[in-house]
Amino acid sequence: MDTKTKQTTQVGRSMPRLEAQAKVTGRAEYIHHLKLPGMLYGKIFRSTVAHGRIRSIDVSAARALEGVHSVFTGQDVLALVPEPYFGPAFLDQPVLALEKVRYVGEAVAVVLATDPHVAERAVQLIEAEYDELPAVFDEVEAMTSDAVVHEVLKPSGTFPDLKHLVGRKDTNIALDYHLKHGDAGKAFAEADHVFEHTFKTQQVMHTPLEPMVSAAEPGNQRITIHTASQSPSFVRLEIARLLGWQENQVRVKVAHLGGGFGAKLYIKLEALVAVLALMVRRPVKISLTMEEQFYTITKHPTTFRIKSGVTRDGRIVARRCDVYWNGGAYADIGPRVTQKSGFTAAGPYDIENVDIESYALYTNRPPAGALRGFGIPQLVWAYESHTDIIARELGIDPLEMRRMNILKEGRPQATGTLMRGAEIELVLERTAARMNWDQPFERGTGTIRRGRGIAIGFKAVVAPTTSTALVTVAADGSCILSMSTVDMGQGSDTAMAQIVAEIMEIPTEQVRVMNPDTDVTPYDMATLGSRSTYHMGNAVRLAAEDARARLRALAKEAGLPDDFDGPAREIFIKRYGMQAGTVVGFGSFIPSYTPPDKKDGSSKNVTPFWMVGATGVELEVDTETGHVKIDRMINVVDCGNPLNPGIVETQLSGAAIMQLGFTLYEKMELDAGQVTNASFADYKIPGFHDIPLAFENEMVDSYQPGAPFGAKGVGESATFGVSPAIANAIHDAIGVRLTELPMTPEGIYRALRAQQNNPLEDF
Amino acid sequence: MDTKTKQTTQVGRSMPRLEAQAKVTGRAEYIHHLKLPGMLYGKIFRSTVAHGRIRSIDVSAARALEGVHSVFTGQDVLALVPEPYFGPAFLDQPVLALEKVRYVGEAVAVVLATDPHVAERAVQLIEAEYDELPAVFDEVEAMTSDAVVHEVLKPSGTFPDLKHLVGRKDTNIALDYHLKHGDAGKAFAEADHVFEHTFKTQQVMHTPLEPMVSAAEPGNQRITIHTASQSPSFVRLEIARLLGWQENQVRVKVAHLGGGFGAKLYIKLEALVAVLALMVRRPVKISLTMEEQFYTITKHPTTFRIKSGVTRDGRIVARRCDVYWNGGAYADIGPRVTQKSGFTAAGPYDIENVDIESYALYTNRPPAGALRGFGIPQLVWAYESHTDIIARELGIDPLEMRRMNILKEGRPQATGTLMRGAEIELVLERTAARMNWDQPFERGTGTIRRGRGIAIGFKAVVAPTTSTALVTVAADGSCILSMSTVDMGQGSDTAMAQIVAEIMEIPTEQVRVMNPDTDVTPYDMATLGSRSTYHMGNAVRLAAEDARARLRALAKEAGLPDDFDGPAREIFIKRYGMQAGTVVGFGSFIPSYTPPDKKDGSSKNVTPFWMVGATGVELEVDTETGHVKIDRMINVVDCGNPLNPGIVETQLSGAAIMQLGFTLYEKMELDAGQVTNASFADYKIPGFHDIPLAFENEMVDSYQPGAPFGAKGVGESATFGVSPAIANAIHDAIGVRLTELPMTPEGIYRALRAQQNNPLEDF
Repeated sequence: MDTKTKQTTQVGRSMPRLEAQAKVTGRAEYIHHLKLPGMLYGKIFRSTVAHGRIRSIDVSAARALEGVHSVFTGQDVLALVPEPYFGPAFLDQPVLALEKVRYVGEAVAVVLATDPHVAERAVQLIEAEYDELPAVFDEVEAMTSDAVVHEVLKPSGTFPDLKHLVGRKDTNIALDYHLKHGDAGKAFAEADHVFEHTFKTQQVMHTPLEPMVSAAEPGNQRITIHTASQSPSFVRLEIARLLGWQENQVRVKVAHLGGGFGAKLYIKLEALVAVLALMVRRPVKISLTMEEQFYTITKHPTTFRIKSGVTRDGRIVARRCDVYWNGGAYADIGPRVTQKSGFTAAGPYDIENVDIESYALYTNRPPAGALRGFGIPQLVWAYESHTDIIARELGIDPLEMRRMNILKEGRPQATGTLMRGAEIELVLERTAARMNWDQPFERGTGTIRRGRGIAIGFKAVVAPTTSTALVTVAADGSCILSMSTVDMGQGSDTAMAQIVAEIMEIPTEQVRVMNPDTDVTPYDMATLGSRSTYHMGNAVRLAAEDARARLRALAKEAGLPDDFDGPAREIFIKRYGMQAGTVVGFGSFIPSYTPPDKKDGSSKNVTPFWMVGATGVELEVDTETGHVKIDRMINVVDCGNPLNPGIVETQLSGAAIMQLGFTLYEKMELDAGQVTNASFADYKIPGFHDIPLAFENEMVDSYQPGAPFGAKGVGESATFGVSPAIANAIHDAIGVRLTELPMTPEGIYRALRAQQNNPLEDF
Repeated sequence: MDTKTKQTTQVGRSMPRLEAQAKVTGRAEYIHHLKLPGMLYGKIFRSTVAHGRIRSIDVSAARALEGVHSVFTGQDVLALVPEPYFGPAFLDQPVLALEKVRYVGEAVAVVLATDPHVAERAVQLIEAEYDELPAVFDEVEAMTSDAVVHEVLKPSGTFPDLKHLVGRKDTNIALDYHLKHGDAGKAFAEADHVFEHTFKTQQVMHTPLEPMVSAAEPGNQRITIHTASQSPSFVRLEIARLLGWQENQVRVKVAHLGGGFGAKLYIKLEALVAVLALMVRRPVKISLTMEEQFYTITKHPTTFRIKSGVTRDGRIVARRCDVYWNGGAYADIGPRVTQKSGFTAAGPYDIENVDIESYALYTNRPPAGALRGFGIPQLVWAYESHTDIIARELGIDPLEMRRMNILKEGRPQATGTLMRGAEIELVLERTAARMNWDQPFERGTGTIRRGRGIAIGFKAVVAPTTSTALVTVAADGSCILSMSTVDMGQGSDTAMAQIVAEIMEIPTEQVRVMNPDTDVTPYDMATLGSRSTYHMGNAVRLAAEDARARLRALAKEAGLPDDFDGPAREIFIKRYGMQAGTVVGFGSFIPSYTPPDKKDGSSKNVTPFWMVGATGVELEVDTETGHVKIDRMINVVDCGNPLNPGIVETQLSGAAIMQLGFTLYEKMELDAGQVTNASFADYKIPGFHDIPLAFENEMVDSYQPGAPFGAKGVGESATFGVSPAIANAIHDAIGVRLTELPMTPEGIYRALRAQQNNPLEDF
């Protein structure tokens, strides 16, 4: 396929989202609206201790409350599911706690009632006693702590490359990932300068404004799960595995999502509602509160020790990265984050000698998973702060420092995979150009100081993963696209419809996109990690091409000329003598991929494409309060050839603002494992007033080879540079280097006060 | 495909129906159960005159009734749909009556309310005034009557071969069909004997025990119609056409059906609920009562004048058939019945010279459509009674008479199409053998007389029609079959699943069949006329073969050997490194077909297959009461190689019992167009006590070429011979020849009394 040269009419249109009207008129379906006949509502009783053996659970008072239908504990689950553990990477998480609890907030029991308020009151009547065990909360301490969260590691069968971990004991290291490129030890010894810094990120939450919700509807030898999920195909597989059923006995239906950001991946409430519904033989629904989401899935806190060997003129010759990912009590997808993000920990730089050690750790915190960036923002935070410090120390302009070391097209990344189709240089240069980096910058002299900063990051896509799609052409030529990609606000329905429309030569408005429904929409790995545009986009392209080929075959059967290019309707009428019939095209896509070498982690082909994003920031710091005001933010990305530039723009803005929250405001505060600010009253996410005054996005001119119409993922790229660009700008403004997120006014103020040896006047 | 020689494991299994458990446990979905948020119930105000111009409709009192949401008439419909006429063959039927009413019971207005009882009360408050017009009720009178039901004929665009009828005026002849084979005029002149008889059938109703029900749910630029329909694809097309929408904006979902028999074809309530829902912007549901079904769709009353020229030794050399089909006020599929059944009116006999005239007529009766047999039972009733009379008159054994004239393999039927794959002789011989026809039969001498009769009929399938199907293979090898064939009790879900299972080499229990849903299950012409096994069966076969080919391609990509025949799951795991992925196969089938010659109606290939069915009956007649008791009934059919013999048996029994009702009991009594017995209290359908004491079915050894695993349709074949076999047996018992259906005790008794010249003693 060489679509590059062809003029497109549907691809590249900044058309509004197909579902926009349904959403603004309140007609869009959400699982929260769903009511099923005879449905019971579940409310969860949660652990109050971070680590402990369950001594007893007294549910008698709850059961006795009028209006309560039933109360279940982990022991009850065993009657239906003898091995009630789930998880994408490790089968470590019980449907309800069994024997032990591993974090404050873990689900221990569930009350069912026709009135959710009754269920909630009954939850207050449950009493559990625990024999407390020593707990560990810090990822570095977890490496060696005697407090062991899981006695034995239980990797799932889903990822065969994790099989070697099965049965490992007495460790919190769920996964250790190692990459060796060149000879870092030797290079450090020979380097002119060696710099080493440690950076930390905090635990935060995805805060989808639609909290998690799932309902299960038992049928005749089958079950239907209605869920706000980013991964319906996985839910089907995992529920079928848990129940010992066939896949086609489990139906997973997804409506619109009010945000996901990685929170709604894999199994969250689905196993619980499925088991409950089968036990009571009635539909069961559980909706979380915003507070409960803090106890369900979060973003990994990290400690990143980064060390670079540098020549006196600024060439980085060696880098060692030690990354500790705090995965909380259950692995979720953490081990994959550790691996798949781990290998880019040295940054988008051309460094001959690299050592990377990346550890997924169990602790007694709420579980951590993927959150918009799949670990990359934590890494970029560290390596781009580090880069800036080195530049400052060597007296090199930070932009020049990056230009000097940047990975150029065709050069090998740390895994050995050659950089192809990643416009790293262009992204950097466009960011610099838009910031007028070569122009003098007024930093101010009074209370308010101004600074600017830049940062660039890159990301591979999780590989190899599979997407499949169906394109159905009705006899009037209108199309239905059936795919399991979940549109959670990112506009995938519209972008994919544009691909169908382009290939079928109809307006995009004539394409309808089915909501994911595993009985109907074929397999997709999941909607995560900016994989959909490339993977599902290719599957959709193949499905549409298959449908087009079948239409052409029909035209031939109908005796139409080979070069017939009239509308589909004419083909059907000619073939069938009336408006009748259908053709359906199927597409299945998996990119080529080379698994990493088991010894040194090298791979010739570690990712089907690279994402690149840079952020430039101009800001003010109030030195009397530590308050930061972002005057201007510029996000520049390589997203290939955008399918719908208007939607891509909103993706860039959304990603950058989300990361801004993680940079300046958000942090889950824990006290003995208890989140003390699990509410929007105490946990601040960005509001309209926090958005930078000047806010710019740019997609650089690019065309991703092998991608559908040259387009690739974009949902995360504008998160990469935000935190370090702000840190670098703060340093530029007031000479203070912050190494922990979030950078709060209080933190900035304290750091400023502590900086005795570098008074503002001299900076 | 030569599947004939291969031993099958799934095809040919008499397994229970897949949905049996759901049905007997009450878990099966029906549209009657459906409740949608905000739903309004509609009740219909109907015409009390058979033919009239609407002078006024006063809905004010109905509107004023507390709890009434709204009231609509035909005029209101015009605001949304300027041309609100629908129909499969003719666009003659308005959504609600406009200007004229054409039969008693026609829908004139609708009341909507949240409480259906309120709506029903409000309907009583509506008053309409009509200027009555002369009405016509009899099909023969309608040929020449001055009472013209439709001023102008309006064939739909759906069947291009009806286009020549557009604009015909001042006639009740909706369609006239003519077939000429040989030179009948000459042959009659030369024949030793000429026999002519006229036979009549009555108007009856399908009486599905689940009355018609449809609901419409307006969405955002789309509409979902939940309906108990046999033709979801047609409903989608027709509603889209009425609204001027794209097909993919209309979604039609069908749950289980509580019987159909042709009543639930095309548009019944669907247009009405769709229009109402769009006008009120809320879901609207209409469920008919059993009584209202009598005013919705029925079976054609017919008059059949049949004339045969016969040699003295019993060879039929000429036959002329004049068939008049009473289609009622709206054509529905009547014109197709007239044509497609018309060409077999001369029966399964090898007659050199045939003239057939077949007329579809409008009258002021409730509309008539297809009912289990698509007109064939009406024809067989006549030609097999006629055959028996001739045999008796010539002193030839009725079986011998048939043997002498039967159409043999390879001989041309009246259209010129050669008989292929129709086991007519074998069916006749097996019926005779099971009846021990060559043995003496004890007729009795007292009050109770015994007789036996035999009759055989055949049927083409409506052609050409299209079916399509999808087979989805999950990563564990379990399959989903998506097709729009409606399982209304005939077992199609199970039979089609057996085809998938056979090809995919899995147990049928691992196949799930989706309910029809036009967003999901691809186009199918309709579930009618015993077409599904052959047409959809072939589409399903092709879809499964496509899925299997895609699986094999996947196996090849995975590096598995060419002859790998392990389970699908192993292919997926090998290809994707885990249980992941899907393949979807698509199949589309339309048989080859030669349209009839416009001049003489001849065709070399008028049907993809023939259905053959014979019935043998032994009965008693109580000469004091006219009461008939069937002692033994034998139904023998050629259904090809049965996919599921157990289900085929139930189909044969069901068909024969249904036809037994039409033969002995059922008749819609009309008084000035008003049905006077529109209730089960007055309209008797067969009960358990009416089932013959000995009831036998046989499928002759057969394999239909070109059919999936040699199987063809069977839902109608056991209806063919029932009525004439009973009439022939009554004649055999008491020497009375009845020529009108039903043959009631009263009718038999009266005929017996009238038969002065042929006293019982001498017979």
